[in-house]
Amino acid sequence: MDNFFKVKNLEEIMEYASLFLLVKAEEVNLFKALNRVLYRDIKADANLPSFKRSSMDGYAVCARDTYGASEANPAYLTIKGVIKMGEKPAFSITRGEAAKISTGGMLPKGADSVVMIEHTDMSDDTTIEVLKSAAHAQHVIEAGEDYNKGDAIISAGTVLKAQEIGLLAAFGKDKAKVFKKPKVGIISTGDEIVSIKETPEQGKIRDVNTYTLFTSLKKAGADPISYGIVKDDFDSLFKVCRQVLSETDMLILSGGSSVGTKDYTVKVFSNLPDSEILAHGISISPGKPTILAKSAGKALWGLPGHIVSALAVFEIIVKQFVKNIAGCKNDKKIYSPFAKLTRNISSAHGRVDFIRVKVSENNGELEAEPVLGKSGLLNSIVKADALIKINKDTEGLNKGDRVSLIPL
Amino acid sequence: MDNFFKVKNLEEIMEYASLFLLVKAEEVNLFKALNRVLYRDIKADANLPSFKRSSMDGYAVCARDTYGASEANPAYLTIKGVIKMGEKPAFSITRGEAAKISTGGMLPKGADSVVMIEHTDMSDDTTIEVLKSAAHAQHVIEAGEDYNKGDAIISAGTVLKAQEIGLLAAFGKDKAKVFKKPKVGIISTGDEIVSIKETPEQGKIRDVNTYTLFTSLKKAGADPISYGIVKDDFDSLFKVCRQVLSETDMLILSGGSSVGTKDYTVKVFSNLPDSEILAHGISISPGKPTILAKSAGKALWGLPGHIVSALAVFEIIVKQFVKNIAGCKNDKKIYSPFAKLTRNISSAHGRVDFIRVKVSENNGELEAEPVLGKSGLLNSIVKADALIKINKDTEGLNKGDRVSLIPL
Repeated sequence: MDNFFKVKNLEEIMEYASLFLLVKAEEVNLFKALNRVLYRDIKADANLPSFKRSSMDGYAVCARDTYGASEANPAYLTIKGVIKMGEKPAFSITRGEAAKISTGGMLPKGADSVVMIEHTDMSDDTTIEVLKSAAHAQHVIEAGEDYNKGDAIISAGTVLKAQEIGLLAAFGKDKAKVFKKPKVGIISTGDEIVSIKETPEQGKIRDVNTYTLFTSLKKAGADPISYGIVKDDFDSLFKVCRQVLSETDMLILSGGSSVGTKDYTVKVFSNLPDSEILAHGISISPGKPTILAKSAGKALWGLPGHIVSALAVFEIIVKQFVKNIAGCKNDKKIYSPFAKLTRNISSAHGRVDFIRVKVSENNGELEAEPVLGKSGLLNSIVKADALIKINKDTEGLNKGDRVSLIPL
Repeated sequence: MDNFFKVKNLEEIMEYASLFLLVKAEEVNLFKALNRVLYRDIKADANLPSFKRSSMDGYAVCARDTYGASEANPAYLTIKGVIKMGEKPAFSITRGEAAKISTGGMLPKGADSVVMIEHTDMSDDTTIEVLKSAAHAQHVIEAGEDYNKGDAIISAGTVLKAQEIGLLAAFGKDKAKVFKKPKVGIISTGDEIVSIKETPEQGKIRDVNTYTLFTSLKKAGADPISYGIVKDDFDSLFKVCRQVLSETDMLILSGGSSVGTKDYTVKVFSNLPDSEILAHGISISPGKPTILAKSAGKALWGLPGHIVSALAVFEIIVKQFVKNIAGCKNDKKIYSPFAKLTRNISSAHGRVDFIRVKVSENNGELEAEPVLGKSGLLNSIVKADALIKINKDTEGLNKGDRVSLIPL
C-alpha cells in the first residue's frame, strides 16, 4: 500500500493546518464569551469616553487660573457648584471659578483641568485655595481619548479574555458574534479496551484515551463528543467514522495499538467520501504512528494508542489544527515561557524529539527537569508540566540551554 | 470612623486569604472534571497495569534464549502461538519458544522479555531467527510498574487537567468528588453606571466592571452571579449585599467611584451580620481604594471603580482568595514565566506598584515592554498581556531586570 510510505516531517504536517474548513458563526451572550473566538473585526461606533471626565476627586478649573499657585501663594477660586455623578453639569464655569467633581464626573463647560482635592484648602464656604499649579488637561480624560469613533478595537480571530469582554461591554455589545466551537468526534478502538466503568479482565485495559483527549479538546476550545469504544473490524469502524464525519468538524481515532487497528484505520479513512491520506507516520518521537487524512474538507486523525504519545501529538500538532478551524488567529495572551534545562539530553539525529519536563522556579528563572522513565507509563505525564522540543538537526541539548515550554 | 485608617500592605492582606469558609463538595462526571479541584486524596485501588504487557510489536521470549544472538549468529525459536489483544494467553512458553505479541498484549507465562519485530526474521512458518540479544524485561511493562495498589495517585486540592483525568479513567473513576465552584456575587454601583444595553446619556457610562469581573471569576474557576447595578444609597446597597451574602460564598462590589459610594460600601459592610472591616485601603498602585471585610465567614470586597484598577486587584489579590475557598492547593501546571524588562521604570518607595506590560519573544527569551498611558483607559489593559510587580523597598526596576509575569 502506497500509504505506508507517507511518513512526513513536522514542518510538512504543520503546513496542512490551514487546509480544513472553518466552522460557522453564532451569537453568544457576553457573559458566555470567555475564550470564544471573535468572528468579525469590531470598530468603535462612538467615542470612548463620550464626554470629558475627571480621573480624580477634586475641583474642575481653568488651568490658567492656577499657574504659579503654591502653598505660599495659593490661587483663590469661587466654587460655582457641585457636579453630580452621572449627570451633565447644569452650569458652566469661567475664569476664577471651580466646580467640585468626583472621579468619573463630567467636566462642566469652561473647565479644562482638575485639581486633586489634596492640593486644595477651603478658604471659606464658597472659596477654595489651590496650592499647586495645574497643567492643561491634568487629571482629565478627553472624549475619545480611550477609543475614537471608527477605531478598530478588536480584530476577528481574537480569543476573548476579560479585557476584551470589558471593552465589548463598554461599547454596548451585549452579544458577541463568535466562531462556533468545533465539534470533534472521539473514537477509541482496540479489542483490549473496555469502558472505564468495567473492571478489566486480564489482558484488557480501561479506555483512558477518550477521557484524556476529551479534556484536552475542551481546554483547546473545542466541543468534544465521545463516540465510545468501537470494535476492531473494518465494518464497525467504517460505520462509526462515517457517522462522526457527518456530525462533527474533525475526527480523532485512537486507542488500540494492535496491528489490526493500524491497518483498519488507513483502510477506513481511505474509503470515506472524497478522502486523501496526507500522512501515514510523522518523524517525531513520541507520536510516529500518527495518521492524518482529509475527507470532505475535514481532518481525520489516527493517534497512537499509548496515551502518552497521543497526548503529545495532540498538544504539539492536533491542537493547532483545532485552533485553525475555530478561526483563532490571535491568542495573544498565551505565550510560551522559556526555561533552563537542568541536564544534558541526547537525541537521535533526523527526528524531532519531545521530552517531558517538570518545571520549577529557581532564582528568577524557570528550570526544566526531564522526567525520566518509560514512555508507556501514565505517571510520566502526570509528573510532567510541559514538553520541550529537540530539533532534528541536533544530537541533543545541553544543561543550561534555554528551551521553549509547551505546557501540558 | 476608625475604618478609614485600616490601610494594609500587600503581605498583611494576603495573610487573610486562608481565613474564609471552604466550599462544599459535589460529584461530577469525569467528562466535566476539567479544571475542577479534587476533594479527597485518591489512592490506587489496584495495580496499573494489572498484568505484564508488551510495549512493542514483536515476540515474547525467554530473554536467556537470545543471549549472544546477532545477525551473524541468530537464535532460533519456535513460534508457540499468537497472543490475541485483550485476552489472557491460552498457552505458556518455555525455553526455545516464542509467542507473537502486539503492543499492549499480555505476556504469556514463561516469557520475560519482548524482541521487536524489526530484530527478527522468519526462518520458516513456525520458526523465527532472533538477530539481537534481548535483556530481561526488555519492552515489557510489569504489573504495577505505573502505579502499585495503595500508591497515592492524586492529592486533594489538585486542579484536574487532562493527565489527571486520564489517570482517574485508568482507575475506573467515572465520577470525581470535587469542591463546588465558589459562587461569587457581583454588584455594580454608582449613579453614573447604566446597563450595557442602554445608550448612556452625557455623564453616564456603561457597566464594564460586571462583565470584566464576571469573566475573570469564571477563568479563576468560580461560578459568578451578577446582581446588576445597584443605586448609590445605603438602603439599596444593604438590601442587595445581604441577599448576596445569603446566596453566595463571596461578594464583589465595584463600579461607582463617587465619594458617596465609597462611604456607603464601608457602612453597608459594617452593618452586615457578624462583620469586620479587615482593610480599608491597600498600599498598592493601582488598587489603593480597596475594601476587604468579613461577614459570616465570607469575604466581601469593595473594588475600585476604574476597571483597570479593579482588574489588577482581582488578579493580584482576589483570585488567590477565590482559589483558597475553592480548595485549590496544587495548581502545579500553572507557573509564572519570567521576562526581561525592556526599559527602566521608576516607582514610589513604600508602595507596591503593578505595571502593565506587553510580552513578546526575542532570541529565546520573553521580553516585557511597559504599556504607557493613563491608567484610566481600557485600551491599556487590552494592549497588555501581564502585570509585573515592583516591590515597595525599591525605587524602580532597570532595563534588563528579570521580572515575574502575572498573566492578564
